[in-house]
Amino acid sequence: MQTRKHLLGLEGMPREEIQSFLDTAKSFLEVLSRPIPKVPILRGITVVNLFFEPSTRTRIAFELAEKRLSADTLNFAASSSSVLKGETLKDTARNIEAMRINVVVIRHSAPGAPHFLANCLKSSVINAGDGAHEHPTQGLLDIFTLREHFGSLENLNVLIVGDVTHSRVARSNIHGLTTMGANVSVCGPATLLPFEAESLGVTLVNNLDDALSETDAVNILRIQLERQKTGLFPSLREYRNLFGLTMDRLEKVGRDIVVMHPGPINRGVEIDSEVADSKYSVILQQVTNGVAIRMAALYHVVGASGLVESN
Amino acid sequence: MQTRKHLLGLEGMPREEIQSFLDTAKSFLEVLSRPIPKVPILRGITVVNLFFEPSTRTRIAFELAEKRLSADTLNFAASSSSVLKGETLKDTARNIEAMRINVVVIRHSAPGAPHFLANCLKSSVINAGDGAHEHPTQGLLDIFTLREHFGSLENLNVLIVGDVTHSRVARSNIHGLTTMGANVSVCGPATLLPFEAESLGVTLVNNLDDALSETDAVNILRIQLERQKTGLFPSLREYRNLFGLTMDRLEKVGRDIVVMHPGPINRGVEIDSEVADSKYSVILQQVTNGVAIRMAALYHVVGASGLVESN
Amino acid sequence: MQTRKHLLGLEGMPREEIQSFLDTAKSFLEVLSRPIPKVPILRGITVVNLFFEPSTRTRIAFELAEKRLSADTLNFAASSSSVLKGETLKDTARNIEAMRINVVVIRHSAPGAPHFLANCLKSSVINAGDGAHEHPTQGLLDIFTLREHFGSLENLNVLIVGDVTHSRVARSNIHGLTTMGANVSVCGPATLLPFEAESLGVTLVNNLDDALSETDAVNILRIQLERQKTGLFPSLREYRNLFGLTMDRLEKVGRDIVVMHPGPINRGVEIDSEVADSKYSVILQQVTNGVAIRMAALYHVVGASGLVESN
Repeated sequence: MQTRKHLLGLEGMPREEIQSFLDTAKSFLEVLSRPIPKVPILRGITVVNLFFEPSTRTRIAFELAEKRLSADTLNFAASSSSVLKGETLKDTARNIEAMRINVVVIRHSAPGAPHFLANCLKSSVINAGDGAHEHPTQGLLDIFTLREHFGSLENLNVLIVGDVTHSRVARSNIHGLTTMGANVSVCGPATLLPFEAESLGVTLVNNLDDALSETDAVNILRIQLERQKTGLFPSLREYRNLFGLTMDRLEKVGRDIVVMHPGPINRGVEIDSEVADSKYSVILQQVTNGVAIRMAALYHVVGASGLVESN
Repeated sequence: MQTRKHLLGLEGMPREEIQSFLDTAKSFLEVLSRPIPKVPILRGITVVNLFFEPSTRTRIAFELAEKRLSADTLNFAASSSSVLKGETLKDTARNIEAMRINVVVIRHSAPGAPHFLANCLKSSVINAGDGAHEHPTQGLLDIFTLREHFGSLENLNVLIVGDVTHSRVARSNIHGLTTMGANVSVCGPATLLPFEAESLGVTLVNNLDDALSETDAVNILRIQLERQKTGLFPSLREYRNLFGLTMDRLEKVGRDIVVMHPGPINRGVEIDSEVADSKYSVILQQVTNGVAIRMAALYHVVGASGLVESN
Repeated sequence: MQTRKHLLGLEGMPREEIQSFLDTAKSFLEVLSRPIPKVPILRGITVVNLFFEPSTRTRIAFELAEKRLSADTLNFAASSSSVLKGETLKDTARNIEAMRINVVVIRHSAPGAPHFLANCLKSSVINAGDGAHEHPTQGLLDIFTLREHFGSLENLNVLIVGDVTHSRVARSNIHGLTTMGANVSVCGPATLLPFEAESLGVTLVNNLDDALSETDAVNILRIQLERQKTGLFPSLREYRNLFGLTMDRLEKVGRDIVVMHPGPINRGVEIDSEVADSKYSVILQQVTNGVAIRMAALYHVVGASGLVESN
């Protein structure tokens, strides 16, 4: 097993290390299929879930992963906290460290907040989403889901559709997928596609139907409905017409495409209900895999501390 | 032990099955009286408490029951959740299932929400209150409390006082008590009594003093103070005069009547402080029994999955 | 070990008993330094954290202490509770007792709320802060931190700076420190110093520089920024000029003074950033010690119930 003290992002993470995360997740996926899906690997380890942005799905997936590994968990929601009393992130973090907490899982609206914590703490830090920057466990679970389905990522054609510029999910996927040898394209309104596409190693495609015709898997990003006010965004109706994944559009391709979505889904906006529930969709596998990937992430960062055996 | 995969309501539940819940609760009540009131029966089982309506008492009673049985628990309050991001109940539920959570305890303002979940999930579902429909664990604990006190429910006269129409507590009590052979009467303002009384097998009584003179036990419903604006409700003062359980009124009967209340109590409104704290009151026993009943409910639904031994 | 059923305040607590808390905390501090800082001492014991005021630091320190001792924990935040439905504190408390919860950790804005609970409950009660009255675990951890640093408290000169009148931290420190033989002075705006200083056995000092020149340790109270509106409080700028602990001021003394702060810190208001992060500061040790003290508090009150072995 490769270990690393922190899991901050997929940018720059070597292929062997991504592979190692995926392999560990694979064995935890087996644990999750047992009648009693629990192992004592992190007994006595304390993890705090430090969520400065609201979240259910990711928070619950992490908490569940922690409990499956027998860790002790503490939840900290920013709304009822010292943060309101004007405490700096650094002071909050140092307090956590002084309490001898082993792992900090942090979601924060500021890009780089987890990196900042990692620099000033002895505890391990896992990034559960920092602004529009990275969401590495989501990236890993998406890649894991694709590897489970296709066996390999080498030369796989993956398309990401939506507001790529503001998406930490997209960014982590792009970094991880390109490292693993996949070909990544992005498609969406021109105002929501990244300028730096080329440096990221991805192809920009304007027309969704064209893009679909050449892809093996499509990852549909959630539309942040609140972003409509910004002027970057067409109307929902227009968005759906141009970029919504409808069954018509999908079946026109004439072969099976794997459909992913990080959730929560806006049914009838970026994806049609019948697509989300179709044989093409692996959305619920993503959720299951998300628990296994978080178990792997916790195991790797705690393993780096020498507190658990690595194999 | 009789098991059932879900506990959705007491309507239509056969007498032997209610009996089986009560018997299991009886043995858990013994566990609760031990110095260390904990048993490893649900070790490795994960339960999510999915509360879409605010609750303390019921949520804590369930969480405590889960911990007494050594289950892992996750709490999900709707206010900080994906629900705010427009996710459908079905999608929330499917995500929970994909995370391999064994039991979902749900409170929701929509009648039928737990039934809907039970239809689309492989996990077990326990209804912790759905709108004005059912609150089966409250019904069972009330019935259990009466059985503990009187030995049998056969031909017991039970009176329910208050806003019966809007009460899930009343509805579950009525279904369970009539099945168990008790005679149920209801008393309250005419606007707050159910039209379908006869089909429910209960007797309507207008005058509280008359009703009390013929009952063995009285279950006082909590007055939802916010309902006063609806026009269905007399003034608090008038309510108290006509339907409040005062010590005067109780002692005028001339024999002991068991007094129950699901809590939280509005002292001085539907019930007087001295009555709530009197020798007639079993309100705190109800709370203790409530933990035992929730343990029984969890045990029965998990038992149906084959994950625990049934005896 | 000395045990007591409740920990409500340090006023009137005998020296031997404070000593006993500190000694127990010392052995738990050793536990906290182990790779797996967890002991099974409170297995099967249930603790509810009943926080009627927002808190992070204290709530997390308690929850962590509970988990380090293997207790089961329940969190109850007043905002989502029956309190909103008008339930009295006494009824909330009795419900908790009826649920067979062993220890209630309570924070409440009303002075005396924990004492009230202790009077009506069979459960043990730990005061986690009641209005401007007492915050005994904070007092104990401050005293513990001083004992760790100086070896003894006898004749130690301790200075408390800030809004002493409204501070439960100050009050618990004063009671405990004077019992342990320390000399306590207080310094702050005249409007924020207690009238009853003499009866508390403390010395009032107006000038911070004079006070610092004669002290071994200084405990800087957090300024409640919202108190500025009351008219008791000078401007922040003036406060900082007269009573802020700056590096200049500290170094002018010419010898080492131990600097404490209960947190969260207003950097640049009551204390300068460079002071808080300097070699003088033991602020982060206070946080670590805070977990050990809460473990000791839980152990002592549960020990009084005979549920754990005392030694």
